[in-house]
Amino acid sequence: MILKDLIFETRSYRRFDGSKKIPYKTLQDLVDLTRLSASGANRQPLKYAIINTPEKCEKVFPSLAWAAYLKDWEGPSDKEKPAAYIIILGDKSITESFGVDHGIAAQSIRLGATEAGLGTCIIASVKRDQLSKELGIPEKYEILLVIALGKAAERIIIDEMKEGDVKYWRDSEKNHHVPKRPLDEIIIDL
Amino acid sequence: MILKDLIFETRSYRRFDGSKKIPYKTLQDLVDLTRLSASGANRQPLKYAIINTPEKCEKVFPSLAWAAYLKDWEGPSDKEKPAAYIIILGDKSITESFGVDHGIAAQSIRLGATEAGLGTCIIASVKRDQLSKELGIPEKYEILLVIALGKAAERIIIDEMKEGDVKYWRDSEKNHHVPKRPLDEIIIDL
Repeated sequence: MILKDLIFETRSYRRFDGSKKIPYKTLQDLVDLTRLSASGANRQPLKYAIINTPEKCEKVFPSLAWAAYLKDWEGPSDKEKPAAYIIILGDKSITESFGVDHGIAAQSIRLGATEAGLGTCIIASVKRDQLSKELGIPEKYEILLVIALGKAAERIIIDEMKEGDVKYWRDSEKNHHVPKRPLDEIIIDL
Repeated sequence: MILKDLIFETRSYRRFDGSKKIPYKTLQDLVDLTRLSASGANRQPLKYAIINTPEKCEKVFPSLAWAAYLKDWEGPSDKEKPAAYIIILGDKSITESFGVDHGIAAQSIRLGATEAGLGTCIIASVKRDQLSKELGIPEKYEILLVIALGKAAERIIIDEMKEGDVKYWRDSEKNHHVPKRPLDEIIIDL
Protein backbone atom coordinates (compact mmCIF):
# COMPACT_ATOMS: atom_id res chain seq x y z
CA MET A 1 0.00 0.00 0.00
CA ILE A 2 1.34 3.47 -0.72
CA LEU A 3 1.84 5.65 2.32
CA LYS A 4 -1.03 8.02 1.60
CA ASP A 5 -3.52 5.15 1.62
CA LEU A 6 -1.93 3.64 4.72
CA ILE A 7 -2.32 6.95 6.56
CA PHE A 8 -5.88 7.31 5.33
CA GLU A 9 -6.73 3.84 6.65
CA THR A 10 -5.12 4.57 10.02
CA ARG A 11 -8.16 5.90 11.87
CA SER A 12 -8.68 6.18 15.62
CA TYR A 13 -10.85 3.16 16.36
CA ARG A 14 -12.54 2.89 19.73
CA ARG A 15 -14.71 -0.18 19.13
CA PHE A 16 -13.15 -3.54 18.38
CA ASP A 17 -14.14 -7.13 17.77
CA GLY A 18 -13.34 -8.40 21.24
CA SER A 19 -13.22 -12.02 20.04
CA LYS A 20 -10.07 -11.44 17.92
CA LYS A 21 -6.83 -11.80 19.82
CA ILE A 22 -3.42 -10.47 18.75
CA PRO A 23 -0.33 -12.70 18.99
CA TYR A 24 2.63 -11.41 21.00
CA LYS A 25 4.89 -11.67 17.95
CA THR A 26 2.67 -9.27 15.97
CA LEU A 27 2.95 -6.69 18.74
CA GLN A 28 6.69 -7.25 19.08
CA ASP A 29 7.07 -6.59 15.34
CA LEU A 30 5.18 -3.31 15.76
CA VAL A 31 7.53 -2.22 18.53
CA ASP A 32 10.46 -3.18 16.31
CA LEU A 33 9.23 -0.57 13.78
CA THR A 34 10.01 2.20 16.28
CA ARG A 35 13.59 1.19 16.88
CA LEU A 36 15.22 2.69 13.81
CA SER A 37 13.52 6.07 13.66
CA ALA A 38 14.75 9.49 14.69
CA SER A 39 15.19 10.20 18.39
CA GLY A 40 16.23 13.51 19.95
CA ALA A 41 20.04 13.47 20.22
CA ASN A 42 19.73 9.78 19.30
CA ARG A 43 19.15 9.00 22.99
CA GLN A 44 16.35 6.47 22.34
CA PRO A 45 14.81 6.77 25.79
CA LEU A 46 11.57 4.96 24.94
CA LYS A 47 10.66 1.54 26.30
CA TYR A 48 7.58 -0.51 25.56
CA ALA A 49 5.27 -2.79 27.53
CA ILE A 50 3.24 -5.28 25.50
CA ILE A 51 -0.11 -6.23 27.03
CA ASN A 52 -2.13 -8.93 25.27
CA THR A 53 -3.55 -11.33 27.83
CA PRO A 54 -7.15 -10.83 28.99
CA GLU A 55 -5.97 -10.62 32.61
CA LYS A 56 -3.50 -7.84 31.93
CA CYS A 57 -5.84 -6.03 29.53
CA GLU A 58 -8.40 -5.87 32.36
CA LYS A 59 -5.81 -4.09 34.47
CA VAL A 60 -5.21 -1.45 31.79
CA PHE A 61 -8.73 -0.63 30.66
CA PRO A 62 -10.04 1.20 33.77
CA SER A 63 -7.18 3.71 33.57
CA LEU A 64 -8.06 4.92 30.09
CA ALA A 65 -10.39 7.77 29.05
CA TRP A 66 -12.36 7.28 25.83
CA ALA A 67 -13.67 9.86 23.35
CA ALA A 68 -14.08 12.99 25.44
CA TYR A 69 -16.47 14.57 22.91
CA LEU A 70 -18.98 11.68 23.07
CA LYS A 71 -20.64 12.68 26.31
CA ASP A 72 -23.26 9.91 26.26
CA TRP A 73 -20.84 7.07 25.52
CA GLU A 74 -18.83 5.59 28.33
CA GLY A 75 -16.35 3.71 26.18
CA PRO A 76 -16.28 0.30 24.52
CA SER A 77 -18.53 -2.43 25.92
CA ASP A 78 -17.05 -5.72 27.08
CA LYS A 79 -17.45 -7.17 23.58
CA GLU A 80 -15.85 -4.15 21.94
CA LYS A 81 -12.75 -3.77 24.10
CA PRO A 82 -9.22 -3.69 22.66
CA ALA A 83 -7.44 -7.03 22.41
CA ALA A 84 -4.07 -5.55 23.30
CA TYR A 85 -2.15 -2.47 24.32
CA ILE A 86 1.32 -1.16 23.69
CA ILE A 87 2.32 1.20 26.47
CA ILE A 88 5.01 3.69 25.48
CA LEU A 89 7.23 4.50 28.45
CA GLY A 90 9.92 7.10 28.90
CA ASP A 91 12.99 5.77 30.67
CA LYS A 92 13.93 8.58 33.06
CA SER A 93 17.29 6.96 33.75
CA ILE A 94 18.26 7.92 30.17
CA THR A 95 16.69 11.39 30.02
CA GLU A 96 13.74 13.29 31.46
CA SER A 97 13.13 15.02 28.13
CA PHE A 98 11.38 12.80 25.60
CA GLY A 99 10.67 15.52 23.03
CA VAL A 100 8.37 14.11 20.34
CA ASP A 101 9.98 10.68 20.23
CA HIS A 102 6.74 9.05 21.39
CA GLY A 103 4.75 10.81 18.66
CA ILE A 104 7.12 9.44 16.04
CA ALA A 105 6.97 5.97 17.61
CA ALA A 106 3.18 6.00 17.94
CA GLN A 107 2.75 6.87 14.27
CA SER A 108 5.06 4.04 13.18
CA ILE A 109 3.24 1.54 15.40
CA ARG A 110 -0.16 2.65 14.11
CA LEU A 111 0.83 2.54 10.45
CA GLY A 112 2.32 -0.90 10.97
CA ALA A 113 -0.84 -2.07 12.72
CA THR A 114 -2.94 -0.88 9.79
CA GLU A 115 -0.66 -2.77 7.43
CA ALA A 116 -1.22 -5.85 9.61
CA GLY A 117 -5.00 -5.42 9.43
CA LEU A 118 -5.45 -4.00 12.92
CA GLY A 119 -7.18 -0.89 14.22
CA THR A 120 -5.60 1.37 16.82
CA CYS A 121 -6.22 4.38 19.01
CA ILE A 122 -3.66 6.56 20.78
CA ILE A 123 -4.80 7.32 24.30
CA ALA A 124 -3.03 10.17 26.07
CA SER A 125 -5.68 10.68 28.73
CA VAL A 126 -4.50 8.03 31.15
CA LYS A 127 -4.71 7.70 34.94
CA ARG A 128 -0.96 7.28 35.12
CA ASP A 129 -0.50 6.63 38.83
CA GLN A 130 -3.30 4.08 38.82
CA LEU A 131 -1.97 2.28 35.74
CA SER A 132 1.59 2.22 37.09
CA LYS A 133 0.34 0.65 40.29
CA GLU A 134 -1.93 -1.90 38.58
CA LEU A 135 0.84 -3.17 36.33
CA GLY A 136 3.72 -2.68 38.75
CA ILE A 137 5.61 -0.39 36.37
CA PRO A 138 8.95 0.52 37.96
CA GLU A 139 9.38 4.10 39.18
CA LYS A 140 12.00 4.95 36.58
CA TYR A 141 9.48 4.70 33.73
CA GLU A 142 7.07 7.50 32.89
CA ILE A 143 3.90 6.46 31.07
CA LEU A 144 3.79 8.58 27.91
CA LEU A 145 1.07 7.08 25.70
CA VAL A 146 -1.08 3.99 25.52
CA ILE A 147 -1.93 2.53 22.13
CA ALA A 148 -5.04 0.34 22.09
CA LEU A 149 -5.16 -2.33 19.37
CA GLY A 150 -7.71 -4.75 18.04
CA LYS A 151 -9.70 -5.81 15.02
CA ALA A 152 -11.62 -2.61 14.24
CA ALA A 153 -15.42 -2.86 14.52
CA GLU A 154 -16.68 0.56 13.54
CA ARG A 155 -16.80 2.74 10.47
CA ILE A 156 -15.04 6.07 10.54
CA ILE A 157 -15.86 8.86 8.10
CA ILE A 158 -13.68 11.91 7.55
CA ASP A 159 -15.57 15.14 6.94
CA GLU A 160 -14.22 18.52 5.96
CA MET A 161 -14.21 20.76 9.01
CA LYS A 162 -16.90 23.42 9.13
CA GLU A 163 -16.45 26.68 11.03
CA GLY A 164 -13.58 25.39 13.11
CA ASP A 165 -15.68 22.77 14.91
CA VAL A 166 -13.19 20.03 15.84
CA LYS A 167 -15.62 17.73 17.68
CA TYR A 168 -16.05 14.24 16.30
CA TRP A 169 -19.55 12.75 16.54
CA ARG A 170 -21.59 9.62 15.81
CA ASP A 171 -24.51 9.43 13.45
CA SER A 172 -27.67 7.37 13.96
CA GLU A 173 -25.96 4.31 12.47
CA LYS A 174 -23.08 4.69 14.93
CA ASN A 175 -20.67 5.75 12.21
CA HIS A 176 -17.98 7.91 13.74
CA HIS A 177 -17.44 11.23 11.92
CA VAL A 178 -14.19 13.15 12.26
CA PRO A 179 -13.85 16.70 10.92
CA LYS A 180 -10.44 17.53 9.46
CA ARG A 181 -9.05 20.88 8.32
CA PRO A 182 -8.58 21.34 4.56
CA LEU A 183 -5.05 21.62 3.16
CA ASP A 184 -5.26 25.32 2.35
CA GLU A 185 -6.02 26.09 5.98
CA ILE A 186 -2.88 24.44 7.33
CA ILE A 187 -0.27 25.83 4.91
CA ILE A 188 0.66 29.42 5.69
CA ASP A 189 2.36 31.74 3.22
CA LEU A 190 5.41 33.61 4.42
CA MET B 1 7.43 -0.50 -0.35
CA ILE B 2 6.34 -2.18 2.87
CA LEU B 3 6.41 0.05 5.94
CA LYS B 4 9.37 -1.66 7.58
CA ASP B 5 11.57 -0.95 4.57
CA LEU B 6 10.27 2.60 4.30
CA ILE B 7 11.17 3.24 7.95
CA PHE B 8 14.58 1.63 7.45
CA GLU B 9 15.27 3.93 4.48
CA THR B 10 14.16 7.01 6.41
CA ARG B 11 17.52 8.05 7.85
CA SER B 12 18.51 11.46 9.21
CA TYR B 13 20.48 12.91 6.32
CA ARG B 14 22.54 16.03 6.89
CA ARG B 15 24.35 16.26 3.54
CA PHE B 16 22.40 16.76 0.33
CA ASP B 17 23.00 17.23 -3.37
CA GLY B 18 22.52 20.99 -3.40
CA SER B 19 21.92 21.02 -7.18
CA LYS B 20 18.63 19.12 -6.87
CA LYS B 21 15.61 21.34 -6.23
CA ILE B 22 12.22 20.21 -4.87
CA PRO B 23 9.00 21.42 -6.53
CA TYR B 24 6.44 23.17 -4.32
CA LYS B 25 3.80 20.57 -5.22
CA THR B 26 5.96 17.75 -3.84
CA LEU B 27 6.25 19.56 -0.52
CA GLN B 28 2.56 20.39 -0.48
CA ASP B 29 1.78 16.69 -0.95
CA LEU B 30 3.99 15.87 2.03
CA VAL B 31 2.11 18.35 4.21
CA ASP B 32 -1.15 16.81 2.99
CA LEU B 33 -0.01 13.49 4.51
CA THR B 34 -0.21 15.04 7.99
CA ARG B 35 -3.76 16.25 7.68
CA LEU B 36 -5.63 13.03 8.35
CA SER B 37 -3.67 11.65 11.29
CA ALA B 38 -4.43 11.66 14.98
CA SER B 39 -4.35 14.95 16.84
CA GLY B 40 -4.87 15.46 20.58
CA ALA B 41 -8.62 16.07 21.10
CA ASN B 42 -8.75 16.35 17.28
CA ARG B 43 -7.78 20.03 17.62
CA GLN B 44 -5.34 19.96 14.67
CA PRO B 45 -3.36 22.99 15.81
CA LEU B 46 -0.42 22.48 13.45
CA LYS B 47 0.33 24.77 10.53
CA TYR B 48 3.12 24.45 7.99
CA ALA B 49 5.42 26.81 6.15
CA ILE B 50 6.96 25.51 2.93
CA ILE B 51 10.37 26.96 2.08
CA ASN B 52 11.91 25.97 -1.26
CA THR B 53 13.42 29.03 -2.91
CA PRO B 54 17.18 29.63 -2.54
CA GLU B 55 16.51 33.07 -1.07
CA LYS B 56 14.21 31.79 1.65
CA CYS B 57 16.37 28.73 2.33
CA GLU B 58 19.27 31.10 3.03
CA LYS B 59 17.15 32.76 5.68
CA VAL B 60 16.44 29.45 7.42
CA PHE B 61 19.86 27.79 7.40
CA PRO B 62 21.70 30.04 9.92
CA SER B 63 19.07 29.31 12.59
CA LEU B 64 19.62 25.55 12.55
CA ALA B 65 22.05 23.47 14.63
CA TRP B 66 23.54 20.40 12.93
CA ALA B 67 24.76 17.12 14.43
CA ALA B 68 25.71 18.05 17.98
CA TYR B 69 27.90 14.95 18.39
CA LEU B 70 30.13 15.79 15.39
CA LYS B 71 32.27 18.38 17.12
CA ASP B 72 34.61 18.99 14.17
CA TRP B 73 31.85 19.41 11.57
CA GLU B 74 30.08 22.72 11.30
CA GLY B 75 27.20 21.51 9.15
CA PRO B 76 26.62 21.04 5.44
CA SER B 77 28.79 23.01 3.02
CA ASP B 78 27.16 25.30 0.46
CA LYS B 79 27.00 22.43 -2.04
CA GLU B 80 25.48 20.08 0.52
CA LYS B 81 22.72 22.24 1.93
CA PRO B 82 19.05 21.19 2.00
CA ALA B 83 16.97 22.19 -1.01
CA ALA B 84 13.87 22.88 1.07
CA TYR B 85 12.39 23.01 4.54
CA ILE B 86 9.00 22.31 6.01
CA ILE B 87 8.57 24.29 9.22
CA ILE B 88 6.01 22.80 11.60
CA LEU B 89 4.27 25.54 13.54
CA GLY B 90 1.91 25.39 16.49
CA ASP B 91 -1.03 27.76 16.15
CA LYS B 92 -1.40 29.20 19.65
CA SER B 93 -4.78 30.68 18.76
CA ILE B 94 -6.10 27.07 18.68
CA THR B 95 -4.25 25.69 21.72
CA GLU B 96 -0.98 26.17 23.58
CA SER B 97 -0.63 22.43 24.11
CA PHE B 98 0.56 20.58 21.03
CA GLY B 99 1.18 17.22 22.69
CA VAL B 100 2.99 14.94 20.28
CA ASP B 101 1.06 16.06 17.20
CA HIS B 102 4.26 17.38 15.62
CA GLY B 103 6.05 14.07 16.19
CA ILE B 104 3.26 12.24 14.39
CA ALA B 105 3.28 14.81 11.57
CA ALA B 106 7.07 14.77 11.23
CA GLN B 107 7.11 11.00 10.87
CA SER B 108 4.44 11.09 8.16
CA ILE B 109 6.29 13.81 6.25
CA ARG B 110 9.58 11.94 6.49
CA LEU B 111 8.15 8.60 5.38
CA GLY B 112 6.43 10.35 2.47
CA ALA B 113 9.67 12.07 1.51
CA THR B 114 11.48 8.73 1.47
CA GLU B 115 8.76 7.32 -0.76
CA ALA B 116 9.31 10.32 -3.07
CA GLY B 117 13.07 9.66 -3.19
CA LEU B 118 14.08 12.45 -0.82
CA GLY B 119 16.23 12.53 2.28
CA THR B 120 15.21 14.40 5.42
CA CYS B 121 16.35 15.44 8.86
CA ILE B 122 14.25 16.66 11.78
CA ILE B 123 15.89 19.63 13.44
CA ALA B 124 14.61 20.55 16.88
CA SER B 125 17.61 22.66 17.86
CA VAL B 126 16.52 25.90 16.25
CA LYS B 127 17.17 29.56 17.08
CA ARG B 128 13.45 30.20 17.22
CA ASP B 129 13.41 33.95 17.78
CA GLN B 130 15.95 34.50 15.02
CA LEU B 131 14.08 32.29 12.54
CA SER B 132 10.72 33.90 13.34
CA LYS B 133 12.23 37.31 12.70
CA GLU B 134 14.03 36.31 9.47
CA LEU B 135 10.88 34.84 7.94
CA GLY B 136 8.38 37.23 9.50
CA ILE B 137 6.43 34.43 11.16
CA PRO B 138 3.41 35.94 12.92
CA GLU B 139 3.47 36.00 16.72
CA LYS B 140 0.63 33.51 17.06
CA TYR B 141 2.73 30.67 15.64
CA GLU B 142 5.26 28.75 17.72
CA ILE B 143 8.07 27.08 15.79
CA LEU B 144 7.96 23.41 16.81
CA LEU B 145 10.24 21.56 14.38
CA VAL B 146 12.07 22.18 11.13
CA ILE B 147 12.35 19.37 8.62
CA ALA B 148 15.21 19.75 6.15
CA LEU B 149 14.75 18.02 2.79
CA GLY B 150 16.87 17.32 -0.25
CA LYS B 151 18.39 14.63 -2.42
CA ALA B 152 20.45 12.70 0.13
CA ALA B 153 24.21 12.69 -0.50
CA GLU B 154 25.65 10.56 2.27
CA ARG B 155 25.60 6.96 3.37
CA ILE B 156 24.17 6.11 6.74
CA ILE B 157 24.92 2.86 8.51
CA ILE B 158 22.97 1.56 11.50
CA ASP B 159 25.06 -0.21 14.12
CA GLU B 160 23.91 -2.10 17.19
CA MET B 161 24.48 0.07 20.22
CA LYS B 162 27.39 -0.91 22.44
CA GLU B 163 27.48 -0.12 26.16
CA GLY B 164 24.79 2.51 25.93
CA ASP B 165 26.86 4.85 23.75
CA VAL B 166 24.26 6.82 21.76
CA LYS B 167 26.68 9.07 19.85
CA TYR B 168 26.62 8.85 16.07
CA TRP B 169 29.98 9.23 14.31
CA ARG B 170 31.62 9.35 10.88
CA ASP B 171 34.20 6.91 9.61
CA SER B 172 37.20 7.76 7.42
CA GLU B 173 35.04 7.50 4.30
CA LYS B 174 32.54 9.97 5.78
CA ASN B 175 29.91 7.27 6.24
CA HIS B 176 27.63 8.29 9.08
CA HIS B 177 27.18 5.55 11.73
CA VAL B 178 24.17 5.56 14.05
CA PRO B 179 23.99 3.19 17.04
CA LYS B 180 20.52 1.86 17.79
CA ARG B 181 19.31 -0.16 20.78
CA PRO B 182 18.43 -3.82 20.12
CA LEU B 183 14.78 -4.88 20.40
CA ASP B 184 15.23 -6.87 23.61
CA GLU B 185 16.50 -3.74 25.35
CA ILE B 186 13.40 -1.67 24.60
CA ILE B 187 10.68 -4.16 25.51
CA ILE B 188 10.16 -4.50 29.24
CA ASP B 189 8.40 -7.41 30.88
CA LEU B 190 5.70 -6.61 33.39
